[in-house]
Amino acid sequence: MTKKRGQQTLVFSVPPGIQATAAIAGPKEGEGLLGSYYDKVMEDNLSGQDNWEKCESYMMEWAVKTVVQKSGLLMMDIDFLLAGDLLNQLIATNFAMRGIGRPFLGLYGACSTMAESMLIGAMMLDGGFANHIVAAVSSHHDTAERQYRYPTELGVQRPLIAQWTITASGAVVLQAESKGPKITSATIGKVVDFGVKDTNSMGPAMAPAAVDTLWQHFQDTGRQADYYDMIYTGDLGKVGKELVIRLMKERGMDISNNYEDCGCMIYREDQDAHSGASGCASSAAVLCAYLYPRLVAGHLKKILFIGTGSLHSTTSYQQKESIPCIAHAVAVEI
Amino acid sequence: MTKKRGQQTLVFSVPPGIQATAAIAGPKEGEGLLGSYYDKVMEDNLSGQDNWEKCESYMMEWAVKTVVQKSGLLMMDIDFLLAGDLLNQLIATNFAMRGIGRPFLGLYGACSTMAESMLIGAMMLDGGFANHIVAAVSSHHDTAERQYRYPTELGVQRPLIAQWTITASGAVVLQAESKGPKITSATIGKVVDFGVKDTNSMGPAMAPAAVDTLWQHFQDTGRQADYYDMIYTGDLGKVGKELVIRLMKERGMDISNNYEDCGCMIYREDQDAHSGASGCASSAAVLCAYLYPRLVAGHLKKILFIGTGSLHSTTSYQQKESIPCIAHAVAVEI
Repeated sequence: MTKKRGQQTLVFSVPPGIQATAAIAGPKEGEGLLGSYYDKVMEDNLSGQDNWEKCESYMMEWAVKTVVQKSGLLMMDIDFLLAGDLLNQLIATNFAMRGIGRPFLGLYGACSTMAESMLIGAMMLDGGFANHIVAAVSSHHDTAERQYRYPTELGVQRPLIAQWTITASGAVVLQAESKGPKITSATIGKVVDFGVKDTNSMGPAMAPAAVDTLWQHFQDTGRQADYYDMIYTGDLGKVGKELVIRLMKERGMDISNNYEDCGCMIYREDQDAHSGASGCASSAAVLCAYLYPRLVAGHLKKILFIGTGSLHSTTSYQQKESIPCIAHAVAVEI
Repeated sequence: MTKKRGQQTLVFSVPPGIQATAAIAGPKEGEGLLGSYYDKVMEDNLSGQDNWEKCESYMMEWAVKTVVQKSGLLMMDIDFLLAGDLLNQLIATNFAMRGIGRPFLGLYGACSTMAESMLIGAMMLDGGFANHIVAAVSSHHDTAERQYRYPTELGVQRPLIAQWTITASGAVVLQAESKGPKITSATIGKVVDFGVKDTNSMGPAMAPAAVDTLWQHFQDTGRQADYYDMIYTGDLGKVGKELVIRLMKERGMDISNNYEDCGCMIYREDQDAHSGASGCASSAAVLCAYLYPRLVAGHLKKILFIGTGSLHSTTSYQQKESIPCIAHAVAVEI
């Protein structure tokens, strides 16, 4: 009996629960809208490390160790870890995992990785392969900036459509039998490319991928938009968010009342983050710091959490390729 | 009832089968030891594409489409694809998946990715989430060389301990009910770092990770080394292979009679590949082109296939970090 529904959706027979979440963030994020919700706010973007990359690794290691502690488990109780980040060859993750020393699978879905790690983790739990899984991601403004864009010292002016890579890490403990909010279904996305080539326009580039997965989720499950209290995309920013609403309206579905983008929930208007946050940790920080406690408290009962990823590299950009994108959706319900 | 055995091993209750394999390779590989086994050998390292990165994408798309055809399926029968490569942000894979248009999960385990994709695919099938999965990887000598090492035009001399990144892509169709060789168990690796910092010494850097996973596999399953007809690591090369034999001997297990490294099976001695092949496709090409037909024909009955990955980046190297490594093992039996 397959647990696949329709084209791209998985429905879990024994829905795994989210037992705990943890989030650590940088100082700019600490001054933002969710400042008081993070488990820890770093004083600066290095936090005592030699360089930004090591700081990103430190953040992930901190988030993983903290979430395991918050869940009342020991690290040795964690069967497997699933994690990723934006850096070339996932060095933030790989060096964090060196410090953690548990069996680990590396994932790359760009900024969709939090949803990807949660859905693979849920399959491993529902499939009977593990009892406890940690899913985690990180991103760091300064590591991403110098890898993807310009030397940070250059101080290049950013266009208003651009987003600001969040400095944060988020981790969750997924558990086979849990009283926490459950992962009930998930939709695995396809690569979608509408031809956007401007790497400052990642929200608009990713919006069609988010719509493709969102639409498919409703097709596969037979649900209407109002099934969910709220639908969240990961990091489309203000411009991408408006585009998702418009593209869904064109398909005959109005989500303007129960849809928000995590990238629009992190910085205040006066923080010069332009279109909003981006990065793996945009969706992860909002889920771990803000949405999870609201689910546990019953303020939210059913959410659809959609990780959105832009799958280009500096090489593909220099070779004048457009930006392929992907989105994965995870339904969390209490 | 958990399907986990011991610390790191999964035992499948309904072992998924490998329904078909396909491999495409470059001209140097075509002149090598397995030249006549690849489904296709390209005439040059571009194969009509604008650049090497697009050629790598083309190889993966070709391998995926070919393996689906060889398995007697249509692309629309494939529920999900799992794939990865060595390039920053997995562009070879992501652009291939754009052309294929099926739901997809990106993985990064460096050169361990073929084993990683097969074991996640096997979990998805055994867990009831899919009927058909494609797992695929690629690597390309020239894309890897210019990303990880030097501009290819520079013609830097390579030390004899260095390996040669293979230009190839391999893909498998995994199927829930299949008469093909079965994936019976898998061991997920930990990050292991013995402090090697020389990126020309990747075989010796990865050998302790391979030994860690191999040893754990035997601990978890209670098997002895002679349970398997052959044990294969992915791309340790001559130097790394000798180190694995020695390290296993120090632990009291002699694998010198039934162990080989895929990186030693690809090039002839006179092909100037020094210590052997490396790259995601080293293990994949040997599995898809050579081992699979031998399993189907019954010449091999039980093999342990260990993907070995070196998880550094040029940034971590410049920051004087050592090389964290990982290995994942997949048991294939008929």
